[in-house]
Amino acid sequence: MRIKNDQFLRACRREPTDYTPIWLMRQAGRYMAEYRAVRERYSFLEMVKTPDVAAEITLQPVQAYPLDAAIIFADILPPLEGMGIDLTFEQGEGPVIHNPLRTPADVAALVVPEPRETTAFTLEAIQLVQRELAGRIPLIGFSGAPFTLASYAIEGGSGKDYRITKRMMLGTPDVWHSLMQKLTELVISYCHAQVEAGVNAVQLFDSWAGNLSPFDYREYVLPYVNQCVAAVRELGVPVIYFGTEMSGMASLLRQTGADVLGVDWRIDLDEAWAQLGPGVAVQGNLDPAVLFAPWGEIERRVDDILARAAGRDGHIFNLGHGILTETPVDHVARLVEYVQMASRVA
Amino acid sequence: MRIKNDQFLRACRREPTDYTPIWLMRQAGRYMAEYRAVRERYSFLEMVKTPDVAAEITLQPVQAYPLDAAIIFADILPPLEGMGIDLTFEQGEGPVIHNPLRTPADVAALVVPEPRETTAFTLEAIQLVQRELAGRIPLIGFSGAPFTLASYAIEGGSGKDYRITKRMMLGTPDVWHSLMQKLTELVISYCHAQVEAGVNAVQLFDSWAGNLSPFDYREYVLPYVNQCVAAVRELGVPVIYFGTEMSGMASLLRQTGADVLGVDWRIDLDEAWAQLGPGVAVQGNLDPAVLFAPWGEIERRVDDILARAAGRDGHIFNLGHGILTETPVDHVARLVEYVQMASRVA
Repeated sequence: MRIKNDQFLRACRREPTDYTPIWLMRQAGRYMAEYRAVRERYSFLEMVKTPDVAAEITLQPVQAYPLDAAIIFADILPPLEGMGIDLTFEQGEGPVIHNPLRTPADVAALVVPEPRETTAFTLEAIQLVQRELAGRIPLIGFSGAPFTLASYAIEGGSGKDYRITKRMMLGTPDVWHSLMQKLTELVISYCHAQVEAGVNAVQLFDSWAGNLSPFDYREYVLPYVNQCVAAVRELGVPVIYFGTEMSGMASLLRQTGADVLGVDWRIDLDEAWAQLGPGVAVQGNLDPAVLFAPWGEIERRVDDILARAAGRDGHIFNLGHGILTETPVDHVARLVEYVQMASRVA
Repeated sequence: MRIKNDQFLRACRREPTDYTPIWLMRQAGRYMAEYRAVRERYSFLEMVKTPDVAAEITLQPVQAYPLDAAIIFADILPPLEGMGIDLTFEQGEGPVIHNPLRTPADVAALVVPEPRETTAFTLEAIQLVQRELAGRIPLIGFSGAPFTLASYAIEGGSGKDYRITKRMMLGTPDVWHSLMQKLTELVISYCHAQVEAGVNAVQLFDSWAGNLSPFDYREYVLPYVNQCVAAVRELGVPVIYFGTEMSGMASLLRQTGADVLGVDWRIDLDEAWAQLGPGVAVQGNLDPAVLFAPWGEIERRVDDILARAAGRDGHIFNLGHGILTETPVDHVARLVEYVQMASRVA
């Protein structure tokens, strides 16, 4: 299907755009009253697993704001359930995995499921959203990257210092590599199924990889990211690779092979791009907490980011991480319009 | 007093050393049985506030291992109590501030105390330690840097996304600057008092500054760090400036004027040093979680770090952040000896 507003996809491919396209990580979320209204009736996992609800939530922000891309409402962890991992979301605590992977036997017992069966709800939601969008803007699919999925599965939730994960990685590398290979197969087939269902781009979230040293990332993580990126790119859609706290790993990020690299707010955008080198698009990088500031301060920072990206093709405006829960909605609306207006080529 | 083992101080000044000196952040801590034995008899704040106990704990690691520097056992938050801040340490929760700064009136009410009175316990501990060390190795004093103190005082404890701090910083910059100026005066006089009491170097911990964008660091934080660094350097002792997640801020770190910059493990040491440029010493940067790995893996990573620092004066070996609570003590002992042995100039 032809996409009418293809600014985002053009930027992914580093083609000239009319203005800097913008979408926001976690743009479908608690900061919106429309989301909270649905959330009152369903648990978080019910929302993810009910296709018409997930589709409705996906569409809320793109109906409210002139965003240049939608992103499917889903979560990185449900695909793990099909492997044999027992997942719940606890009130105020986030995800809890009740049978965390700790032994070689735990890893050996994992199966690689068929995501067309075990995550059919997300694939169906993608189809519903695409029917509704009807080519107005592109739809982004996503998956957790293997390291971030592994660290959740090992720690049993959000880790603090990832010592259990690192102990498995360094102490029993065979077990680690076997786990990462299984997760890589899962990620690839899950992304494949999403592309079949109709997504126009894929973002790999490696949210926790920034807790690794370059030494460990290079040896224990990068080869698996490479496999995922290469497999998804072969399907003909651009791949965005995103992590936080990775400012010190520019050369390794480039080696992922991703079309677009997500950059958090801990580095100036031009500095990040210079370190990454030519031939890659960049997504970012406003500090999400800045959206709580008075509008004038937000504008100063947006101007700064746009100025640092000026003269280069391939900038996608985004926050440096997911939008925060209580972000003022009027600032979100103004941000989207301002980025598009201020960056428009005269 | 002449220091017999001055390898650490020589490295701070980028003078040639016989080997790479090593100390470990939080080297006096829970991972040691000797520490836990004392901790059973006192609360954490009692330990900090009882000079002979603080001195005993300071000396535990330098008696157990051939470390090249001691660091006074203290905490960054007690100096805030003299300003009017009500601080406790809750079991398993860390520090809690019961009257967090939220309004202009809260900030206006803060007084700048005389640390010679309000933190006399730490100054006395410094004197006791120096008497005991008798010039064997240098003693490092420390303080929180203004931003990190401000964010604790505003959030009321460890923040997650620092949205309250950033809201004050961007929303009421006059209040922010007034708070930072008061904290800067506190930090300077506290460090001054520590140098008078006998410390041989000072580390400024800006543990949370890595959560800022370079834009905000430059405008709202750097000028105050500059004041602190300049004032302490004038006293004739080297200053180490340490933060985590600051790999994207090399040029700003250089502008602090510190003699030594602490680097976390999220960047290769040679890459960090290249970005920082010549004329500065570097401290770091082993991932603390690596100490849970089998010794062979630890050794590979130490070799890598030493190789990346080879040929340059001014490398101080350390972890990239504080040592973790359950770190195996035999790995700590081996690490200290191995760094000194492997780096020794033949």
